[in-house]
Amino acid sequence: MASADRIAYFNGRFVPEREVLVPFRDRGFKYGDAVFDTTRTFGHRIFKLAEHVDRLYRSLRYLRIDPDMAPARMMEITEEVLRRNLPLLEPDDDYWVTQRVSRGLDDAHKDTWNQHGPTVIVECVPLPLAERASLYRDGIRVITPSVRRTPPQSLSPRVKTHNYLNMVAANLEVRSQDPDAWAILLDTAGNLAEGLGSNVFLVSGGVLLTPREQTVLSGISRETVIDLAREAGITVVEQDLDLYDAYNADEAFLTSTSLCICPIATVNGARIGTAVPGPLTRQLSEAYCRFVDFDFVGQYLKRLG
Amino acid sequence: MASADRIAYFNGRFVPEREVLVPFRDRGFKYGDAVFDTTRTFGHRIFKLAEHVDRLYRSLRYLRIDPDMAPARMMEITEEVLRRNLPLLEPDDDYWVTQRVSRGLDDAHKDTWNQHGPTVIVECVPLPLAERASLYRDGIRVITPSVRRTPPQSLSPRVKTHNYLNMVAANLEVRSQDPDAWAILLDTAGNLAEGLGSNVFLVSGGVLLTPREQTVLSGISRETVIDLAREAGITVVEQDLDLYDAYNADEAFLTSTSLCICPIATVNGARIGTAVPGPLTRQLSEAYCRFVDFDFVGQYLKRLG
Amino acid sequence: MASADRIAYFNGRFVPEREVLVPFRDRGFKYGDAVFDTTRTFGHRIFKLAEHVDRLYRSLRYLRIDPDMAPARMMEITEEVLRRNLPLLEPDDDYWVTQRVSRGLDDAHKDTWNQHGPTVIVECVPLPLAERASLYRDGIRVITPSVRRTPPQSLSPRVKTHNYLNMVAANLEVRSQDPDAWAILLDTAGNLAEGLGSNVFLVSGGVLLTPREQTVLSGISRETVIDLAREAGITVVEQDLDLYDAYNADEAFLTSTSLCICPIATVNGARIGTAVPGPLTRQLSEAYCRFVDFDFVGQYLKRLG
Amino acid sequence: MASADRIAYFNGRFVPEREVLVPFRDRGFKYGDAVFDTTRTFGHRIFKLAEHVDRLYRSLRYLRIDPDMAPARMMEITEEVLRRNLPLLEPDDDYWVTQRVSRGLDDAHKDTWNQHGPTVIVECVPLPLAERASLYRDGIRVITPSVRRTPPQSLSPRVKTHNYLNMVAANLEVRSQDPDAWAILLDTAGNLAEGLGSNVFLVSGGVLLTPREQTVLSGISRETVIDLAREAGITVVEQDLDLYDAYNADEAFLTSTSLCICPIATVNGARIGTAVPGPLTRQLSEAYCRFVDFDFVGQYLKRLG
Amino acid sequence: MASADRIAYFNGRFVPEREVLVPFRDRGFKYGDAVFDTTRTFGHRIFKLAEHVDRLYRSLRYLRIDPDMAPARMMEITEEVLRRNLPLLEPDDDYWVTQRVSRGLDDAHKDTWNQHGPTVIVECVPLPLAERASLYRDGIRVITPSVRRTPPQSLSPRVKTHNYLNMVAANLEVRSQDPDAWAILLDTAGNLAEGLGSNVFLVSGGVLLTPREQTVLSGISRETVIDLAREAGITVVEQDLDLYDAYNADEAFLTSTSLCICPIATVNGARIGTAVPGPLTRQLSEAYCRFVDFDFVGQYLKRLG
Amino acid sequence: MASADRIAYFNGRFVPEREVLVPFRDRGFKYGDAVFDTTRTFGHRIFKLAEHVDRLYRSLRYLRIDPDMAPARMMEITEEVLRRNLPLLEPDDDYWVTQRVSRGLDDAHKDTWNQHGPTVIVECVPLPLAERASLYRDGIRVITPSVRRTPPQSLSPRVKTHNYLNMVAANLEVRSQDPDAWAILLDTAGNLAEGLGSNVFLVSGGVLLTPREQTVLSGISRETVIDLAREAGITVVEQDLDLYDAYNADEAFLTSTSLCICPIATVNGARIGTAVPGPLTRQLSEAYCRFVDFDFVGQYLKRLG
Repeated sequence: MASADRIAYFNGRFVPEREVLVPFRDRGFKYGDAVFDTTRTFGHRIFKLAEHVDRLYRSLRYLRIDPDMAPARMMEITEEVLRRNLPLLEPDDDYWVTQRVSRGLDDAHKDTWNQHGPTVIVECVPLPLAERASLYRDGIRVITPSVRRTPPQSLSPRVKTHNYLNMVAANLEVRSQDPDAWAILLDTAGNLAEGLGSNVFLVSGGVLLTPREQTVLSGISRETVIDLAREAGITVVEQDLDLYDAYNADEAFLTSTSLCICPIATVNGARIGTAVPGPLTRQLSEAYCRFVDFDFVGQYLKRLG
Repeated sequence: MASADRIAYFNGRFVPEREVLVPFRDRGFKYGDAVFDTTRTFGHRIFKLAEHVDRLYRSLRYLRIDPDMAPARMMEITEEVLRRNLPLLEPDDDYWVTQRVSRGLDDAHKDTWNQHGPTVIVECVPLPLAERASLYRDGIRVITPSVRRTPPQSLSPRVKTHNYLNMVAANLEVRSQDPDAWAILLDTAGNLAEGLGSNVFLVSGGVLLTPREQTVLSGISRETVIDLAREAGITVVEQDLDLYDAYNADEAFLTSTSLCICPIATVNGARIGTAVPGPLTRQLSEAYCRFVDFDFVGQYLKRLG
Repeated sequence: MASADRIAYFNGRFVPEREVLVPFRDRGFKYGDAVFDTTRTFGHRIFKLAEHVDRLYRSLRYLRIDPDMAPARMMEITEEVLRRNLPLLEPDDDYWVTQRVSRGLDDAHKDTWNQHGPTVIVECVPLPLAERASLYRDGIRVITPSVRRTPPQSLSPRVKTHNYLNMVAANLEVRSQDPDAWAILLDTAGNLAEGLGSNVFLVSGGVLLTPREQTVLSGISRETVIDLAREAGITVVEQDLDLYDAYNADEAFLTSTSLCICPIATVNGARIGTAVPGPLTRQLSEAYCRFVDFDFVGQYLKRLG
Repeated sequence: MASADRIAYFNGRFVPEREVLVPFRDRGFKYGDAVFDTTRTFGHRIFKLAEHVDRLYRSLRYLRIDPDMAPARMMEITEEVLRRNLPLLEPDDDYWVTQRVSRGLDDAHKDTWNQHGPTVIVECVPLPLAERASLYRDGIRVITPSVRRTPPQSLSPRVKTHNYLNMVAANLEVRSQDPDAWAILLDTAGNLAEGLGSNVFLVSGGVLLTPREQTVLSGISRETVIDLAREAGITVVEQDLDLYDAYNADEAFLTSTSLCICPIATVNGARIGTAVPGPLTRQLSEAYCRFVDFDFVGQYLKRLG
Repeated sequence: MASADRIAYFNGRFVPEREVLVPFRDRGFKYGDAVFDTTRTFGHRIFKLAEHVDRLYRSLRYLRIDPDMAPARMMEITEEVLRRNLPLLEPDDDYWVTQRVSRGLDDAHKDTWNQHGPTVIVECVPLPLAERASLYRDGIRVITPSVRRTPPQSLSPRVKTHNYLNMVAANLEVRSQDPDAWAILLDTAGNLAEGLGSNVFLVSGGVLLTPREQTVLSGISRETVIDLAREAGITVVEQDLDLYDAYNADEAFLTSTSLCICPIATVNGARIGTAVPGPLTRQLSEAYCRFVDFDFVGQYLKRLG
Repeated sequence: MASADRIAYFNGRFVPEREVLVPFRDRGFKYGDAVFDTTRTFGHRIFKLAEHVDRLYRSLRYLRIDPDMAPARMMEITEEVLRRNLPLLEPDDDYWVTQRVSRGLDDAHKDTWNQHGPTVIVECVPLPLAERASLYRDGIRVITPSVRRTPPQSLSPRVKTHNYLNMVAANLEVRSQDPDAWAILLDTAGNLAEGLGSNVFLVSGGVLLTPREQTVLSGISRETVIDLAREAGITVVEQDLDLYDAYNADEAFLTSTSLCICPIATVNGARIGTAVPGPLTRQLSEAYCRFVDFDFVGQYLKRLG
């Protein structure tokens, strides 16, 4: 079944994905004046939908976009989108499930497209499991680009918006050197911040370290890992971290909605720790699998075939 | 004639504007991963098209987006779009004319919409002359918001991209206080930077002052004013300027593609100078009108009824 | 009874307030080279005088001004000033009670005014209850100006000095937009700092948040609220907070000597929470009233007539 | 004749200086909410009064203080103050002549002192010639303290206000090490800024260098030196300068209203150049003397006895 | 016995110290491309060698220098160096014991000196007990220079390298004012950082305060003091501290390998607390002596004669 | 003839290079407390020796190191070193010629090595012509690392010192990605600064652009290029430049003592301009060759075989 058969929610209707076409004058297109949030399924079951929708509404509030819909309705729609698309999913695959809300059209253009409220899209797409499978075997190669994460006084990194050029510029730098590397940006003070959709963790002396939330978006996966670590009796500290911490870490990993937990092999070419994954990373991965009742590592690794 | 009758160029075809619909997975929508440039017509004649297209290509180069088209072709298309839409224009009106290029779809989605290259849109829209007419009579009320212009080490302010949330956040602050005020952001060092699509100039002791190009996009209108001032024997200095300079300016004005030159009445409620416009602002406005062979001030003012 | 009847302490004597006249060459006037501290009365009883005098002496130590008097003597004088002025106070009113110490005159001018030590003033003035009463009903409208709080490496914000122009400049910006709004300045990194004599608190998910002390003066009311919250089992975190936190707060309020706790209705025009005051703000206000054994909210609200 | 005999202008009247007593609730005292400007006499003739008054009004405009008086009237008053006090001046002495304008009293206190407008003081005081005489023989010992000049985004250094604690704190640091040293503060980027009322110049390879105006108050003496240097065919560059420039300067000097030009001997203990004053400093001093038609160096040096 | 009799380890051999001669093309000389770590003996017994060697290897890892030797071997060599030099030590003296590892020679120069690996030196030198004895009686005079500690985004302050010019420049400033003063640098935000090999602690209200580790090297002595304080039930907080904190501290002291704990008498000339050492400093000193089973304070003080 | 036959000047004597061995306690080794300067020969003739020695003395002055020798003597020694080593040089080769001055030994160690003054070394080494030859054919691949150039307030980048770890750390980042790439660091504001011993130039619209001197060491080659460009009527502007400028440059090149002028092919993988070298780069290279009367490009290219 082709991707074109997927169904998405689009401003009140469930339509084939290919029909989700946005007027070019939509502020989401012209200005990136839109927010989104993304969760994934584990074995076709959706993960922490309420938490993701809650964060979506915080992003909306920051930008004063009115989604014209209560969170509960957003969750229902999301579940309906998933329900309609599950039949298209291979048994071993899983979905990213995403809500997107743009501010819609400026007044002068509302009539042209007969759209007067925000643009609301809920959609899903299979995870790129094969593409990323080797990362779980080999670890991620992280490079810190020279581009710095946008500072909170310009635009809060805690808002998931359609303005991703800071990240895109960082990735252009990094991938021109190593097409498979992942960029982790530093903030304007030189501290580790985050990558495109991913958070970074270090393990040092048995303690789990991760940047403070202010210059990074606190991913739901990041929070899940923190919770799981604390439950396991591991000390977790959110603090400023820099390249000294990275190069001296015993272990390091990234978290993201799709990756959950994926080990880092190198930072700027320097090998981190001695095993991929390190023991605490492995312990947390396993705890994550238990928590979601799904072997996401196995799901990735089986694509290596 | 309704706006829906306007024709736009869209990925190889000239179509009614309402048919310019972008797949929601276009990176221009998802990430604002797109650039644009805008010029205007004066009495239905297009202004400095070559300079605007040249700047568009500089923006493309910064983001490594390949428009798959030479600048000369981009200019031809632009002229054709204008030619097709001029019949729709009232004699007293004029157009904004805009090129937009997004990076298009990620590989995984190219087939769904059968689009493999960048998204290229060329379009026009009448200037909001009536809406802004009073600004030429009363002057603009400028407010500097607390949000700071994105620093160049995060994303260069000199690139006209579809990432405008820094500006949007600034405008939300300012317009919640005064719906007709215009935001001019300061940079992270507290210097005057720019507003959404506009540059700021101060007059002090007969000298024309404007922020250095690095933290601001050097508007074509900005450059036109600098050229006209120098031709008139006025000293022009590009330097760091702050609120001390603003409050003590003899005159101040904004430039933008649509405004050309529009006087500033107040900055944060403090009246600037004694007349709106001040004498040098008036002189430069008149020089601008002569240069473009069109009375843009009269065009605005006649909307006041 | 007129304000002129109030008595103040002035360099060793208790005199009518109108006779407290400072030589224009006093460094407190020429340079703002002076410190102060202010407490208030609740139902005519003075609040935490020892804590305020202690902080006054910390300010003195930072600037190496010798008050020529032990803290105990400063407290006695303060109490005497209050005692002498209580008869002038309406039963429903209360006083601000303030100590001020300037470095006095430079050597060259000591003889002219026959004053050789510091200038010490202890004075009181009725609280502006009527003027601020509506804030308790409607909440405060907070605006963050573009002016940034003076950084600690230039002058510590933790010292209560007679150098208030940073705050004055901020208020000029804000009040030119909305004469009843209160300015809360950001620090040079864009974090929420403080207003003229006021501290800001946010409530988020049941947790009480307030900026770290370094870039703000730790008000005695701020400390009182922190203590009361902790006694009530509420988690209090002092950390960097920015506009994302403010816009997403469930509740927000200001504290100051005079306000004690006063709810914030909007930040930059964005409504905070759903009620004014929010439930936790109300709980803390009530705890504050109990702690000071006085209904300060009622005292304000009764002025609304 | 004692200083007490000096006459000053005070809110509409010419009174003995000792009667210039400011209500302690004047905002100039409480907040340093006041501005001033100071010129000096040369051989009893006042220097560039118009330029100083012009700068005073720029300071007033920045803080939106209305002096309730036109500049011309301020100049007349200044000249009258000087005229009345010249008889008190020894033939070899000269005056500092200063205007001070505070915002006056807040509304609640206007009636107490029956003062409804700003506080305006015009006054003079003999220059500390004896005290500073050795500086012209030995050169000034400059120390850069750790305190940084207040950044323009907090309060513009170009405004001469009654908020001098940043400078006072700097001087406390420096003079605790060397009671005769002068502090020159660095700005927050580590560039040379200015001292309390003084500007710094370096000579390097025959070129005269001085910090850009934005982070320093552009002294009238500074401008005079720049003009004199340019007239003498010396290249003058206003740019960022740091300690590397200072330690490698061929010569260095301070300018201020009272000092005019005074050579620097050392910066942080490192000797600058080989002679005090260096040849270009001497040339500019002589040009300054010719320009003001007065040997200010001789005036200082004769106090060395 | 002369220092020349001391034995050092040098690239595989134990040789007289005077024979430890480094090729001038060694990167440790040309670029300071080397790291080191230093511990001391107490009564001829070495202190926390494992911790120091562990930190040495963290420094090596940051700079990707391969010492070609396991930490255990480095410890053995260190102990052997000490063993060989103990006979040279007066009974009352003690040693600094230091490992140094440079990256060695660039390829082009390896053959000239027939050295292909890193340069490894292990050496010792008697502590300057007499020189510093008075500090324990009078307290240290601390001055904060204008030079700022190198920020972590340029070079991590947590790495003990052979690049000390930032500290040297700071000391040049400070010691030109007071040859016996110690520099404590501020970081680029104006917070207290560290001095050449020393950490700073403040005592305030019974709480022990010290800068966060990121902008300072976390000395082993610093960690020892923190541990001892916590064992004694004293609250220890690592946080941003500035001059306000310093001037208002009840007590202050420096820690370093050689000093262990030494009281601070003044900061920028302002006296800290009332006694040298203060009570908590004395308590911690005594705990330190017990912990190392050696009276290091007595060892210093007996040199006062 | 082997490198070991080269002669160097070492503290008063001319000795075989392999005998230039520095006591490990030399401050130049322990702290990198040393400065250097390097010129090269063109066809065995030394280039701008006086300018290089002049800059060496400026570096010495910044660090207050006394070389115990006048510049003229330093030049004589340099010429003598060169004279003695020219016989060892292949006809087609050329030398780097370098002076190095360290502060020498601390007092406690002077006697051990019987050295009481500074350490002075003058030495030469053949240029790595073969190693770099392909750069002239293919252009340099520049990468901007995440490490930022040390800011002037920590240590002036204009001083050529033995503290190169900021550069070393940058190179480690860059060369782990591409072993042949050259690092150009950004400064803490994100502007292009410099690389290890190299300066960067951009060509844009026929104008030659290069970073301001303050955050970069003004190389003698940089100055030579600026002079040659101005003589050729090309406008040269020293200003803040960032990645936008780099990506949009028509041409770019590095200058250094050894490279003179070498074209840049790519910056962070983005191709600069259309030819390597671009026309203006070629013109300046040819002018440089004429100026030094030597075809340095040919000298490099002939190594390509």
